[in-house]
Amino acid sequence: MRIYDIIKKKRDGFSLTKSEINFFINGYTKGNIEDYQISSLLMAIFLNKMNMEETANLTEAMINSGEQVDLSSIDGIKVDKHSTGGVGDKTTLVLGPMVAACGLPVAKMSGRGLGHTGGTLDKLESIKGFNVALTKNEFINNVNKIKLSICGQTANIAPADKKLYALRDVTATVDNISLIASSIMSKKLASGSDAIVLDVKVGNGAFMKTIEQASQLAKVMVEIGTRMNKKVIALLSNMNQPLGKAVGNALEVKEAIDTLNNNGPEDLVKLCLNLGSYLLYLGGIVNNIDDGKNKLAKTLKDGSALNKFIEMVNAQGGNEACIKNTGLLPKAKYIVELKSQASGYIKNMYAEEIGKAALTLGAGRDTKEGNIDLSVGIVLNKKISDKINKGEVLAYVHGNDMLNIEKSIHILENAIDISKTSIEEEKLIMRIIDKDNIKLF
Amino acid sequence: MRIYDIIKKKRDGFSLTKSEINFFINGYTKGNIEDYQISSLLMAIFLNKMNMEETANLTEAMINSGEQVDLSSIDGIKVDKHSTGGVGDKTTLVLGPMVAACGLPVAKMSGRGLGHTGGTLDKLESIKGFNVALTKNEFINNVNKIKLSICGQTANIAPADKKLYALRDVTATVDNISLIASSIMSKKLASGSDAIVLDVKVGNGAFMKTIEQASQLAKVMVEIGTRMNKKVIALLSNMNQPLGKAVGNALEVKEAIDTLNNNGPEDLVKLCLNLGSYLLYLGGIVNNIDDGKNKLAKTLKDGSALNKFIEMVNAQGGNEACIKNTGLLPKAKYIVELKSQASGYIKNMYAEEIGKAALTLGAGRDTKEGNIDLSVGIVLNKKISDKINKGEVLAYVHGNDMLNIEKSIHILENAIDISKTSIEEEKLIMRIIDKDNIKLF
Repeated sequence: MRIYDIIKKKRDGFSLTKSEINFFINGYTKGNIEDYQISSLLMAIFLNKMNMEETANLTEAMINSGEQVDLSSIDGIKVDKHSTGGVGDKTTLVLGPMVAACGLPVAKMSGRGLGHTGGTLDKLESIKGFNVALTKNEFINNVNKIKLSICGQTANIAPADKKLYALRDVTATVDNISLIASSIMSKKLASGSDAIVLDVKVGNGAFMKTIEQASQLAKVMVEIGTRMNKKVIALLSNMNQPLGKAVGNALEVKEAIDTLNNNGPEDLVKLCLNLGSYLLYLGGIVNNIDDGKNKLAKTLKDGSALNKFIEMVNAQGGNEACIKNTGLLPKAKYIVELKSQASGYIKNMYAEEIGKAALTLGAGRDTKEGNIDLSVGIVLNKKISDKINKGEVLAYVHGNDMLNIEKSIHILENAIDISKTSIEEEKLIMRIIDKDNIKLF
Repeated sequence: MRIYDIIKKKRDGFSLTKSEINFFINGYTKGNIEDYQISSLLMAIFLNKMNMEETANLTEAMINSGEQVDLSSIDGIKVDKHSTGGVGDKTTLVLGPMVAACGLPVAKMSGRGLGHTGGTLDKLESIKGFNVALTKNEFINNVNKIKLSICGQTANIAPADKKLYALRDVTATVDNISLIASSIMSKKLASGSDAIVLDVKVGNGAFMKTIEQASQLAKVMVEIGTRMNKKVIALLSNMNQPLGKAVGNALEVKEAIDTLNNNGPEDLVKLCLNLGSYLLYLGGIVNNIDDGKNKLAKTLKDGSALNKFIEMVNAQGGNEACIKNTGLLPKAKYIVELKSQASGYIKNMYAEEIGKAALTLGAGRDTKEGNIDLSVGIVLNKKISDKINKGEVLAYVHGNDMLNIEKSIHILENAIDISKTSIEEEKLIMRIIDKDNIKLF
């Protein structure tokens, strides 16, 4: 078998066989195939597409390129949640404790990632002392003991995906359904859980701008999981505005703690109830979604979710005081109010632009080596459809540098549209896709 | 400007601007852009195509990536001929002396190349002592003195093309009209001639299998030249069977000398008369094609073309005796006759397969560093439409190794079809394309 012939075959619009896909993934992972041949193949895949069979085979080949985590020493059904990424998405911090409080083990391996803010691990590090670098044994013991642990990857998961992603990133071959789906699913499936709930974000702040694109991606991911005998359900959720009101690391941790104190923003709570109920359902804790929602809502009211969070913080060396008094979390030097120039109703709050405003303050990293300022970010005072009066606060900008704050405010001003007439609230959960309503390309 | 954005633009089907094309060609030539980004871009160009404007700009950028030969110290209009490559193509060896004998200067820079046999330079080295490595001054002085010189490249011509071609070769991005046309034309246009006649081969032994493909390539090359104020005419010539009867280095030199002795195969003579008359016409030596053909035919009859060849051999240190007695050229140890198993008419003589039979004997190189056996090759005894009797010789196989001869004969047997009924002779000159009958894609 020769890589040249594989490139030519895909270039000419044919489907690749399982052994051809294994050949190029293995060869590339081992360094036997050159970057310039794989990038050429990736562009051919991008333009001529892969069918479902090829996409599933690609995912399997990437899973097999590295270690697979064995979670069998954790009792019960292991479930996992994955979000395709949005602005202000602190779901894991709320959802994990809620679900664990219902008795389902949450063994969550998370990332840092590039973006407008840090990833879940960065956010957790806002809590003084919190250790995300657990050994595999510590991780599993914590889950067995308190049902909840969030840490960095403990194994060499899907190295082929890591290498391919780095190459896609510099060759304009990221935005392809098969490549995105196989990248996400190879990491999730190698992480050892039995069932997965996917939160596929849709809208101007998400990777997928339309419901159609997001549905297609969701269907492919669900089908990949199903072919590998895993239960997978995808929820499409609205990302036309940030989730909740806080965008920034410590600010999002504060919002998560407020939510666990039963004082969270409506959309974040609703999303956690929905995602969580599917997790509980797949995990065999409840028999239907409504029971799941009720059970989860109770964990917020009775404080059991907050207690679970505190248990995790203690188990991972974090300072419990920061949870009880969020004033102890990292704080920015300045808080500047952005006030509305007009009266009316919030029409748009472009999530991606608000993310950029946070990035400008230093909340995220541009490159893998970039530093994050955990204290900075944006806190919105309004959301889409809210009424606002001229002079009322639209958002609070938390920053440590006046020049950056000025730039950030400039971006923010252009990210928010106000209408004279009233605006309908946007739907949060836009579609649910499981294996029974899949119709494939 | 960023290479990422250029890749993305072509990926999405847009046309690249002149400055974008210059950016990636300059950056790649200087080593500032990585192979893996360019290979991705090449695949996007392959699949989404380039328009005429882009193709012309690409050619110009590649010309500007290196030196341009200055032939202004040679008197008169400088013309050049280029063949897209076929089997048994020894045209340059015959055409050069014929045209020079008519008074038109022939300053020909040639190559070695990969193929079933060596290139023109390899063939000339069959003549003992012949020196193809002239300095620029020697080359120009020879042309001024005797009107004819053939040598290797004296300058760093189109290094971008060299780098791009090597990458295309291993990433399945060779067969694209814009990439082929710009590759050929950048080298030709940088070589300093005022007018170019292109011999575009068509058929099973050529790169372009159909008249339509070949016409398209020819039109693009003519248009590129026209846009750069050069006179360019393309002839499409038949490559469904080898040109002439000899395939192999010394064997082709012998056939060229026979032709200069007015004893050449009909198709080779006809092609030289046609290509040559366009060269004379573009060079201002004759006013119409028929005058050119007559003038050129005379050079074969009166021995002036042969004398020109001998003058060149002497000027470049070759042994004149080899020309007067072709028995002195390198000779293979064995000559094996392949006889016909049936009576009838030759229907097919698949040129590419016959080329492979010659390559098997050692006549060509597989890799840049490969050695060539100048003595070996195939001499056909028949051509398409010829009558043949059972037991009559189809071809002579010249080889130095019995195992290779056996393999070569096996390939040859499958390369020749015999029909019971008579077969019409194929047309040699299939189409002529100049700037007035161009219709572009």
